[in-house]
Amino acid sequence: MKLTILGCYSATPRFDNNPTSQVLEINNHIFLIDCGEGTQVQLRQQKIKFARIKHIFISHLHGDHYFGLIGLISTFRLLKRETDLHIYGPKGIKEVITLQLKLSDSWTNYNLYFHELESSQSELIFEDEKVEVRTIPLKHRIYANGYLFKEKPGERTLDVEAAKILNINKAYYNKLKQGFDIENEHGRLISNEEVTFDPPTPKSYAFCSDTVYKPDIVPIVMNVTAIYHESTFLDKHEHLCEPTKHSTAKQAALIARDANAGTLILGHYSTRYDDLNLFKIEAQRVFDNVELADDGKVFNF
Amino acid sequence: MKLTILGCYSATPRFDNNPTSQVLEINNHIFLIDCGEGTQVQLRQQKIKFARIKHIFISHLHGDHYFGLIGLISTFRLLKRETDLHIYGPKGIKEVITLQLKLSDSWTNYNLYFHELESSQSELIFEDEKVEVRTIPLKHRIYANGYLFKEKPGERTLDVEAAKILNINKAYYNKLKQGFDIENEHGRLISNEEVTFDPPTPKSYAFCSDTVYKPDIVPIVMNVTAIYHESTFLDKHEHLCEPTKHSTAKQAALIARDANAGTLILGHYSTRYDDLNLFKIEAQRVFDNVELADDGKVFNF
Repeated sequence: MKLTILGCYSATPRFDNNPTSQVLEINNHIFLIDCGEGTQVQLRQQKIKFARIKHIFISHLHGDHYFGLIGLISTFRLLKRETDLHIYGPKGIKEVITLQLKLSDSWTNYNLYFHELESSQSELIFEDEKVEVRTIPLKHRIYANGYLFKEKPGERTLDVEAAKILNINKAYYNKLKQGFDIENEHGRLISNEEVTFDPPTPKSYAFCSDTVYKPDIVPIVMNVTAIYHESTFLDKHEHLCEPTKHSTAKQAALIARDANAGTLILGHYSTRYDDLNLFKIEAQRVFDNVELADDGKVFNF
Repeated sequence: MKLTILGCYSATPRFDNNPTSQVLEINNHIFLIDCGEGTQVQLRQQKIKFARIKHIFISHLHGDHYFGLIGLISTFRLLKRETDLHIYGPKGIKEVITLQLKLSDSWTNYNLYFHELESSQSELIFEDEKVEVRTIPLKHRIYANGYLFKEKPGERTLDVEAAKILNINKAYYNKLKQGFDIENEHGRLISNEEVTFDPPTPKSYAFCSDTVYKPDIVPIVMNVTAIYHESTFLDKHEHLCEPTKHSTAKQAALIARDANAGTLILGHYSTRYDDLNLFKIEAQRVFDNVELADDGKVFNF
């Protein structure tokens, strides 16, 4: 599982300071999460293969999280994309994108599917044999969701040497990987654990931005491998959280701690702070394994 | 008169290659012309004072000419702008901008005025005591206008020494600057030319992008100080002009020559060309004073 931060700053784009966008590579999928202005330029810089993005997840309809989407959709058209593109985001996203396509008389030459979200409950919104994606209902000034990306458990790993010694016919190997007990060539029942290992632990990633501190998301993201949680403010500005509906680094760490997360990644820093290390120090008072997002930074899990 | 090219490339934004946007400083106005994705970042890079932009002119609703507008409008809000902002552009621009403001529940704290254009005739769309702006009807795949910015003739320059020698009362100096003949203190009629010089020649700038070769714009831009005319293609690809509704460098030069322009600035180059100097060479076969636009380039007239 590989996470590339394309942008992680709040408010307006600046020269070396991009609004929110991330790429999550998980089980052969490339998911784009949020798409602030200039995201397509960041995608090029990070050498992400545009064509392999088939699903885009937008948290909410503030500009710093989606103003780059229409440009990316248009560029896909210029690049002669033919693959379907699925957009997940709040109700309204279809209207605003299709209006812009209509005004430019530039329809896409690929299928564009909108999956508009309205629920305040966590929903399963994407699933295939390898991955599932659920919403994480957030609380911001406007309707917002985070997203939880989860690998499905893989097949068990076969201990080929043990299987040979126990005289198991190769025809049963797939059954074993799927977890079944089987009979060997002498008719003896072999329990699955004797010849297989547990599959690798499925990995998961939670994206939570923008939101106030919202402890009721903890059960949804429990035991997540890595969580990105916005930390617009430091604790000393905690009084700004409620009016702006943002969180502090400390609050992000409380979510990570209570959810037993593997790693906490902070981001969406207010431009008022010069020393981002203060975010890390503050969060580490609550939760140990803290990373700071930065534009262009890559995390491997 | 000072022109700053923020972006001059066609199609998609790249790292060092921005879509169309220009800043024209003329007679104390700062006019923004087109606003492709990332324009606000380019404005910062060129150290243009955001707050002094009060009028934005959008040529047409293809993304590479206006996808940066909503981001700039939002940033103005974050910067606590209070000054009125006037947007000139094709019908539809109001709907698309207000829809995005509505969806983000982020109304501007300044007045936003839309001046939607629908006419296929040249119109006077802005005028004050120093400058006027007219549309230049273009022909593209969708409704498009260029814009002609023109200084108004200034006052005549007073020859103070001559006025003293001719015993003219200071109370008449303003009348003289305005071009009137007046009587001196001995009752003699002094003709204006005896004590004033011609005002500086008013400067003008024509922005013409995107369009096919359209010779009927020549009378509108006649004797313009500088004209920016798109040159998406070289002459060898002239067959692409009609289907895409773009022009060649040669065609841009024909317009400049026939309009007796001072300077021709080329831009909006297709990404298929590596050597932009070929555009200049081609245009100079028709018209001598040719410049190549490039991102960040500044022209003083």
